[in-house]
Amino acid sequence: MDWKTFLSAAKGLFPDDLFLIDAEDCLRYGSDWTKTAGTAGLVVRPRTTDEVSEVLKLCSQMKIPVVPSGGRTGLAGGAVARGELVLSFERMNRLSEVDIHGNTVRVQAGATTQAVHEHCAPQGLMWPIDLASKGSCEIGGNLSTNAGGLRVIRYGMARKWVVGLQAVTMAGEILELNRDLEKNNTGYDLIQLLIGSEGTLAVITEATLKLTRFPNHSWVMFFPFESPRATLDFFAEARRGPFEILAFEFFSKACLDIVSARLNRQSRLGHSSPFYALMEVEFPVGREDEVDQWLGMMLENRVVSDGLLAKSESEKDQVWGLREGITESIQATAPVKKYDVSVPVRKLAAFLEEVERALKQSGLGIELYLFGHLGDGSPHLNLVKPAISTMEQFNQDCAEFEKTIFVLLKSYGGSVSAEHGVGILKKHWLTVSRSPAEMRLFRDIKRVFDPQGLLNPGKVIDL
Amino acid sequence: MDWKTFLSAAKGLFPDDLFLIDAEDCLRYGSDWTKTAGTAGLVVRPRTTDEVSEVLKLCSQMKIPVVPSGGRTGLAGGAVARGELVLSFERMNRLSEVDIHGNTVRVQAGATTQAVHEHCAPQGLMWPIDLASKGSCEIGGNLSTNAGGLRVIRYGMARKWVVGLQAVTMAGEILELNRDLEKNNTGYDLIQLLIGSEGTLAVITEATLKLTRFPNHSWVMFFPFESPRATLDFFAEARRGPFEILAFEFFSKACLDIVSARLNRQSRLGHSSPFYALMEVEFPVGREDEVDQWLGMMLENRVVSDGLLAKSESEKDQVWGLREGITESIQATAPVKKYDVSVPVRKLAAFLEEVERALKQSGLGIELYLFGHLGDGSPHLNLVKPAISTMEQFNQDCAEFEKTIFVLLKSYGGSVSAEHGVGILKKHWLTVSRSPAEMRLFRDIKRVFDPQGLLNPGKVIDL
Repeated sequence: MDWKTFLSAAKGLFPDDLFLIDAEDCLRYGSDWTKTAGTAGLVVRPRTTDEVSEVLKLCSQMKIPVVPSGGRTGLAGGAVARGELVLSFERMNRLSEVDIHGNTVRVQAGATTQAVHEHCAPQGLMWPIDLASKGSCEIGGNLSTNAGGLRVIRYGMARKWVVGLQAVTMAGEILELNRDLEKNNTGYDLIQLLIGSEGTLAVITEATLKLTRFPNHSWVMFFPFESPRATLDFFAEARRGPFEILAFEFFSKACLDIVSARLNRQSRLGHSSPFYALMEVEFPVGREDEVDQWLGMMLENRVVSDGLLAKSESEKDQVWGLREGITESIQATAPVKKYDVSVPVRKLAAFLEEVERALKQSGLGIELYLFGHLGDGSPHLNLVKPAISTMEQFNQDCAEFEKTIFVLLKSYGGSVSAEHGVGILKKHWLTVSRSPAEMRLFRDIKRVFDPQGLLNPGKVIDL
Repeated sequence: MDWKTFLSAAKGLFPDDLFLIDAEDCLRYGSDWTKTAGTAGLVVRPRTTDEVSEVLKLCSQMKIPVVPSGGRTGLAGGAVARGELVLSFERMNRLSEVDIHGNTVRVQAGATTQAVHEHCAPQGLMWPIDLASKGSCEIGGNLSTNAGGLRVIRYGMARKWVVGLQAVTMAGEILELNRDLEKNNTGYDLIQLLIGSEGTLAVITEATLKLTRFPNHSWVMFFPFESPRATLDFFAEARRGPFEILAFEFFSKACLDIVSARLNRQSRLGHSSPFYALMEVEFPVGREDEVDQWLGMMLENRVVSDGLLAKSESEKDQVWGLREGITESIQATAPVKKYDVSVPVRKLAAFLEEVERALKQSGLGIELYLFGHLGDGSPHLNLVKPAISTMEQFNQDCAEFEKTIFVLLKSYGGSVSAEHGVGILKKHWLTVSRSPAEMRLFRDIKRVFDPQGLLNPGKVIDL
């Protein structure tokens, strides 16, 4: 790529400070949280949608590939650059006034999730997508990857919380989609097509986010279970309880042990059960007795054998700490290979039991850590290196077991990526979840939007 | 179309009773609720997805255009046939067992909305899209048109309540999209693209619907207002009340008068205010005092000047009857031309006031009836013929005023079809809501799915 020629052509069209070209910046803007090796050829930091449009037009004319870049907190390599022009949204972070009639807020794509939360909170409103990375991840990225988070069971994914979108195609055309209309049944839903398209169809520049009120007060419950099946049966029961379920997470004994060691804490429930579940429930003030009674009934009828009930903020944080500390505890202990998969909720127990059984039978050198969002069918499978294995052996064993996981996934009608998207890292798995007919439609749709294949090339699908 | 040749080719592939060819059937299956003149060339009634696939394959080979047909309750002419093969789903109405882990149910596209409701109710679950036509309208049609209904403010439109879709392309390819996975971020969202595509991209054969629990008990409130603006300001206030708003409808004095005359009832609030609003609120048992207090505060602070509170089922039905009877009362009284439009919620008052003002200034012979879903910004504009006008004059006046409505809509960033879709009847208005870039993308996407232009031709867009 002849960046000098590009910069000459760009001179006069844009101010010089729009561009970054030194090696350190290019490395930083070209990498994401997966630590996949990446570097930009050039970094561009526009301030307005018009500037985005002009840059893309120029790139189209000069056949320069472009990688859109938000907080770079992605976990599938979707924002990794291999020498392309990186289009960073860090300067496009304006937030408009909250609309208290429509319960919406208009933001630029570079606004962080946390900034949006803080902006709307004074109005008693929130955008319900909440992620661990919220201080860094940006709205454009959240929408491009249809982010989920911890409360999908209650609120759904990002695509349920968008009213309007503004996006720019590789040809520089600005698409003003819907703006802030609640209802608009005039043609195909391009907003929903762009959401989750991982920056491969058009570049999101602004969004009208739908807001909701904060939940009522909540309690957190923590239970031990003998098996995934027992956990799942309890979940079906809990869906009928006198509350809304805000979150329903599970994790295995191995996870509890490793996070307890790391935090230097013991669970008051002990550590002898194979599985544990954390359930956060929301209910209006005045309903406490009913919830207490329901819990009592669950214990009496032996639907659960034991349990903890956390009512105060600090107690709730303590319990959540056990779940939220798992990822970091594992990473700090040993090398790990992670899978973010999903199966239909009702099949989750059977799937987990088959994964455990298959690993045992394989005799491979892998420690399996199971945890995640039981409530929406998406467990995290973490394959951890035992102390006695070498890295080389571990990588080989993982590569082998991965095939088993995907054969199982396909037989369960599952997904190879519940949340994190396809990016680069999961492209070769895509056919586990998608038929040839779907892959063909994906390519054809990609060609409609980006016939030259310049926008985030090599991500999701290849033309 | 040479139907004899088609039937010969089809013989042996399908049982004879799949087809209907007599003139009366063709007329019935070719028309919808808009009474647009239409007739099928041939009617096909498959029982399975495979039969749908075989029929479409044959039609593709023989270049026979196809119109998918559900309950034919559409209001934009989307299911009207002009001599094509009509594909009726009336025999594909199976409902699977409700999944109490995932809170979903799998249904065939020909199941009626009412059948789905009745099927799920014993589990304490419901599909929250509720329409007046629910005894006739089918799931396939609901999803093809992204139906809304009376409770969009609480639950959103149909596209929020679908987990998976099965559809067949004109080439006969069966797309099994997601089945029943809550989370699946692997590629572009073809489900959301097909929803609202009005049968022009692929034919929906099955769907996994997301269910939710029934609302808590509810009260209905009824208020008079001096203006659309006062109504809207109250709405913003009510959004912060100690309840969830299930519905927020408004209507003008003209509407109240006509429905009261028809039902032979008088509103206990009198008939002297220019506008009225009906609000249904949901809250858990035990919260009644808070809601009463809130209402008292609204009256004390003069946010509302008067109000009715309906608590019992029969009282609530009485109030709802005033709103639900408007359409039929108008139709029974005089010829009417209807517009189902939308603007951003916060602009609704200004929009309605401009429409009223513009009509007054025009001096045209039209009586304006305003009512509808204030809570999501979608008013119904009904233009009614005054007794003294002739039909010819009325049609001319409507054609003239329509231009004004659309100029206003465009300036407000509004939609020409909030709910009913484009079909045939709103094609010529599409450019009020959609830019040239969007229209081009629509055509290109249509070509991806249906290169021969055989599926529901002439609906939504022309190739």
